[in-house]
Amino acid sequence: MTKIDTQPAAGNGLLDRRVFLRAGFLGGAALLTAEASAVEREPWMTGPGVGMSESGAPSSHEAHLVRGPIGSRPGTTGAGSSRSPLQYLDGIITPSRLHFERHHSGIPNIDPAAHRLTIHGLVDRPLAFSVESLVRYPTVSRIQFLECSGNSGAALASEPTQGTCAQLHGLVAASEWGGVPLSILLDEAGIKPEGKWIVADGADAAMMSRSVPLEKVMDDAIVALYQNGERLRPSNGYPMRLFLPGWEGNACVKWLRTIKVLDQPAMTRDETSKYSDLQSDGVSKLFSFPMGVKSVITSPSPGLSMHGPGIYQISGIAWSGTSKIRRVEISADGGATWADAALDEHVLPKCLTRFRSAWNWNGGPATILSRATDEDGRVQPTRAVALEGRSRAAFYHYNGIQAWRVGADGEVSNVYA
Amino acid sequence: MTKIDTQPAAGNGLLDRRVFLRAGFLGGAALLTAEASAVEREPWMTGPGVGMSESGAPSSHEAHLVRGPIGSRPGTTGAGSSRSPLQYLDGIITPSRLHFERHHSGIPNIDPAAHRLTIHGLVDRPLAFSVESLVRYPTVSRIQFLECSGNSGAALASEPTQGTCAQLHGLVAASEWGGVPLSILLDEAGIKPEGKWIVADGADAAMMSRSVPLEKVMDDAIVALYQNGERLRPSNGYPMRLFLPGWEGNACVKWLRTIKVLDQPAMTRDETSKYSDLQSDGVSKLFSFPMGVKSVITSPSPGLSMHGPGIYQISGIAWSGTSKIRRVEISADGGATWADAALDEHVLPKCLTRFRSAWNWNGGPATILSRATDEDGRVQPTRAVALEGRSRAAFYHYNGIQAWRVGADGEVSNVYA
Repeated sequence: MTKIDTQPAAGNGLLDRRVFLRAGFLGGAALLTAEASAVEREPWMTGPGVGMSESGAPSSHEAHLVRGPIGSRPGTTGAGSSRSPLQYLDGIITPSRLHFERHHSGIPNIDPAAHRLTIHGLVDRPLAFSVESLVRYPTVSRIQFLECSGNSGAALASEPTQGTCAQLHGLVAASEWGGVPLSILLDEAGIKPEGKWIVADGADAAMMSRSVPLEKVMDDAIVALYQNGERLRPSNGYPMRLFLPGWEGNACVKWLRTIKVLDQPAMTRDETSKYSDLQSDGVSKLFSFPMGVKSVITSPSPGLSMHGPGIYQISGIAWSGTSKIRRVEISADGGATWADAALDEHVLPKCLTRFRSAWNWNGGPATILSRATDEDGRVQPTRAVALEGRSRAAFYHYNGIQAWRVGADGEVSNVYA
Repeated sequence: MTKIDTQPAAGNGLLDRRVFLRAGFLGGAALLTAEASAVEREPWMTGPGVGMSESGAPSSHEAHLVRGPIGSRPGTTGAGSSRSPLQYLDGIITPSRLHFERHHSGIPNIDPAAHRLTIHGLVDRPLAFSVESLVRYPTVSRIQFLECSGNSGAALASEPTQGTCAQLHGLVAASEWGGVPLSILLDEAGIKPEGKWIVADGADAAMMSRSVPLEKVMDDAIVALYQNGERLRPSNGYPMRLFLPGWEGNACVKWLRTIKVLDQPAMTRDETSKYSDLQSDGVSKLFSFPMGVKSVITSPSPGLSMHGPGIYQISGIAWSGTSKIRRVEISADGGATWADAALDEHVLPKCLTRFRSAWNWNGGPATILSRATDEDGRVQPTRAVALEGRSRAAFYHYNGIQAWRVGADGEVSNVYA
């Protein structure tokens, strides 16, 4: 057997990422004493299984793999959120059925044949686009993350909130987003020289509405029609949404209906009464769009128990709203020492990146953390630094380091470290 | 308005890919005469929509987006295939619910807690792995295609078969596949020096069984546990399957149950009675695993009608079982002249690559084709070349160029060109 290299890369049993990638170790396999081919047929091998179907479903044994918890705002209909079950997911793609939701007045049931995207305001030619006309335009597809600006807001509480990784950090997901560059549609309409911003309106009852600077729009914004290969799901804006790679989810207006070119931001209800960042000096920062560099360990995490000492995989996701992830470090001793995690093959800009590390857990209490660095050199801050200058009432754009405490009983809890 | 560059890149209206990527054109947008902000609210904006849910579903307006046709072999239960609806998909990811199926005796309903993967044969230590033990091992994830070796078999008929792109070419899909490198598990078991092949058995009633050379296994084979972020779907091998990047689907044994290390191929029923390639000289080629370089235009394609002359997007997928796609060329004049298509951002090894081109259709009959070249320099062959040396009874590994005929009425049909 390949002998495991027990030289730690950092304190409390963290092994080198090259060990994790290459070496073998008896992680929990059973040594067979008899010739294995003598194994009897399992019951499900004794007769034909079920046949093909038009639309596949997950195994009935994976019924726990759902979005949740569902948080509806009291006294409203369809206003609230559901969360992606990060603790059960792997890789970087989030299945569309499990993509988190954040709605302001529920999911409208839009007839795609009747829906139009209107471009107007400071343009030479106001235009209306049907879905049919849009699919004839140049299209691009890219795998990128989407994060609600309120994700991880629970970390602002003075004492650690107990909950699953989904509950605490599940307002983030990654999909392949496909659609028409908005720059092409605006070129077609002809932007007048004084045009500097757009304001996008959704076709939901809340008429969710956000202003976006033209610079971002002309850079990489798309009118998304496809998500993970098929048309958008209703909960993600069917038949079309604005998608602003790396920017906060609420600005990626769903059920996109109108784009008006303006000479300044529209100062809509959604960008003044909320989605602004109150600072400790009483001034509210507006238009803080890009999401920060961030990471979270998804396994182990609360609800996924450890089963005795031995080698475990520490796995998680890292992302940055402005570039690629360059590096993720992991600590198993509360931040005293750190070791580089291995990154999965696809490290894409403005996308989730999967990281992994091998951990030889000695069975004692331990605090595990991850810290991401992006290609711009920005490093995920500690909680203390992330809270600096913020009002206690500020809620959005928290990207501090997350710490999990592993108890001697193998249970995992949320702590501040 | 940006003036469209009507300089063709190839005959019959194919425009340069740079035009497609950058320039605007009135693809079907309606010019608005009145101020657009006067548009009235649509009915779905007058009250709250539906709320959040544990598992999202596609729009009811996308009910046509299903796998099909479902081909069950007469007299069998669950033996046959369903196909990915390529003509409605975009980008490179195939949603798991729409991943094609090919089963030999239906889908077994496996209890993951009872399932074991056994590694035995020419090893120092026979081992058994539960799902729980496997997830503690080093894991990788990669986005790669899977293609049934029988895909596009209809192209072998002497006259062109009429059908949708799904019917003719829908036994291919791409997913993010995540799992444990099989090399790590075999290292753990300790391969004896005489070990040169493995034979993998599935836990379906057909006990689907294929031999694979150790060289491939140690290169990039994985025991896949995850597909597009979540655990494998039952129709794709839940709770685990063999995944051999770029190699024919049937060798990627689903519901993987045993791996036996051998000094030579096992010559199982599945690799002798079928999944071999009969040549015109009467000799049958065995173990022709890697899938060839290939492409198909998914839009326009049969069933997706064109609506009058004008600019359309030609879009499709290209892939190679051994490397990355380097180039895709498109012809709109039956192969007389060709122009380079634009490739979407993610061009990954052994993965579907999305290509696109702008076509100024003059409304007359036209034959459109795509031709892929991979990084190894291999070029997708014409149908005539693809059939050279094959028996008329040979069925697998067809990768010839596909031609679609666009009629003056805008209808699209399958032709040989």
